[in-house]
Amino acid sequence: MGHGMSEDREAIDRLIELMSRLPGLGPRSARRAVLHLVKKRGTLLAPLAEAMTEVGATARECLNCGNVGTGDICGICADERRATGQICVVEDVADLWAMERSGVFKGRYHVLGGTLSALDAVGPEELRIPRLMDRVRAEAVSEVILALGATIDGQTTAHYIADQLPDVSVTSLAQGVPVGGELDYLDDGTISAALRARRSL
Amino acid sequence: MGHGMSEDREAIDRLIELMSRLPGLGPRSARRAVLHLVKKRGTLLAPLAEAMTEVGATARECLNCGNVGTGDICGICADERRATGQICVVEDVADLWAMERSGVFKGRYHVLGGTLSALDAVGPEELRIPRLMDRVRAEAVSEVILALGATIDGQTTAHYIADQLPDVSVTSLAQGVPVGGELDYLDDGTISAALRARRSL
Repeated sequence: MGHGMSEDREAIDRLIELMSRLPGLGPRSARRAVLHLVKKRGTLLAPLAEAMTEVGATARECLNCGNVGTGDICGICADERRATGQICVVEDVADLWAMERSGVFKGRYHVLGGTLSALDAVGPEELRIPRLMDRVRAEAVSEVILALGATIDGQTTAHYIADQLPDVSVTSLAQGVPVGGELDYLDDGTISAALRARRSL
Repeated sequence: MGHGMSEDREAIDRLIELMSRLPGLGPRSARRAVLHLVKKRGTLLAPLAEAMTEVGATARECLNCGNVGTGDICGICADERRATGQICVVEDVADLWAMERSGVFKGRYHVLGGTLSALDAVGPEELRIPRLMDRVRAEAVSEVILALGATIDGQTTAHYIADQLPDVSVTSLAQGVPVGGELDYLDDGTISAALRARRSL
C-alpha cells in the first residue's frame, strides 16, 4: 500500500478496526459498514456519532438491578407501580428487553450479568447474586421468577439461586413448544420437556 | 413498556435504530451491539464516537477517481509514482481496497460507484463513466483494466466502457479457478470459463 494511501486512510482504518470489535461484525463487514457510513456522512454517520456520544455520557448500569438506564436507579426500579413483590431474574439486559417487549411481566428485574460457570471461573461474586439476596430481604419480595437460559450453566445458576432462597417462592419459566412452533423442527429435549409438563384441556 | 422505561431508554433506542441501518446489522444484532457498547463505554464506545466524528469531518470522495480520502484528491491520485498510464476500473471503494491489499497493481483507479442497470435505471451519467472518459484523454492513459464483477450488470458495464474507448487498450481481469479453490466446490460457469481460458504449461 502506497505511502500517501495509508496516511490518507488513518482515521478510516481506525474506525474499521473499532467497528470490527462489535459482536456480529468481522473485518469484512466492518469495512462494508464504514464505507456505507462514509457514503451517508450527513444522514447516518453524523447522527450516529452524536447518539454514541450521548449514550456514552448518559448510559449507566442501575445500581439496584443492573438494567441499563440514565441514572443511578433505572426507570423500572424507580417506578413504584412495579413494586409488585415479584423479581424476574435474567442473565443480561437483552433478556430484560425481550421480557419487556412481551409486556406480560409487571414486576421488577434483576440482571445477573451472566451465569455461573466452572469452566470460565464465574462464581456468585462475579455475578449480581449477592445483590439479589440483599434485594429479596429489603424489597418484601414474595416470588423470584428465574428466566434463565435452558443451558447447563443457566440451570446450574437457577438451582444455586433457589438453594440460597429457602424462604421465598422461586419459580422458573415453563419449558415447552414455542407458540407457532412445529414439532418436526423441535429438538428432542424440548419435546420431552413439553410432554412431561403436559396439561389437561 | 412502562413510562419511566421509555424515557430512560430514548438515547439508547435511537442508537439501536441508527445501528440497525448499517449493512449486515438487523434490529437484533443492533441491540446486541449497543449493549456491548454500553458495557464497554470507556474502551470502545468513546473511541468509536470520536473516530466517527473525525471521519465525518474529514472523509470525502476524491474528485478525480471516487476513492475515499481526506482531501479533494486522494492519496493515490496525488502520488506521482502511480501515474503509470494504467487505470483500474472498479465498482466501488471496497473493490479498490481489495486490489490494494493484493499489492499487485501499481497504477491508479477509477471508482464507478456501481454498475449500469436497466432494471434500476442506472445509466452512464449516474456512474463516474463520463469522468473516466475525461481522465483517459487527460492523463495519457495507455491501458484501462476493468476489474468489475462477473455479473450480468458488471459485464454489461464492461462492454459499454470498452465500446466508448476505441483508441485505448481495454483489458479485463482473467476468469478461472481461484487460488486454493477446489473444482468440486466451483460453479459450472467458473469451470467453463477456466477451461475456455486454459493455458499451456
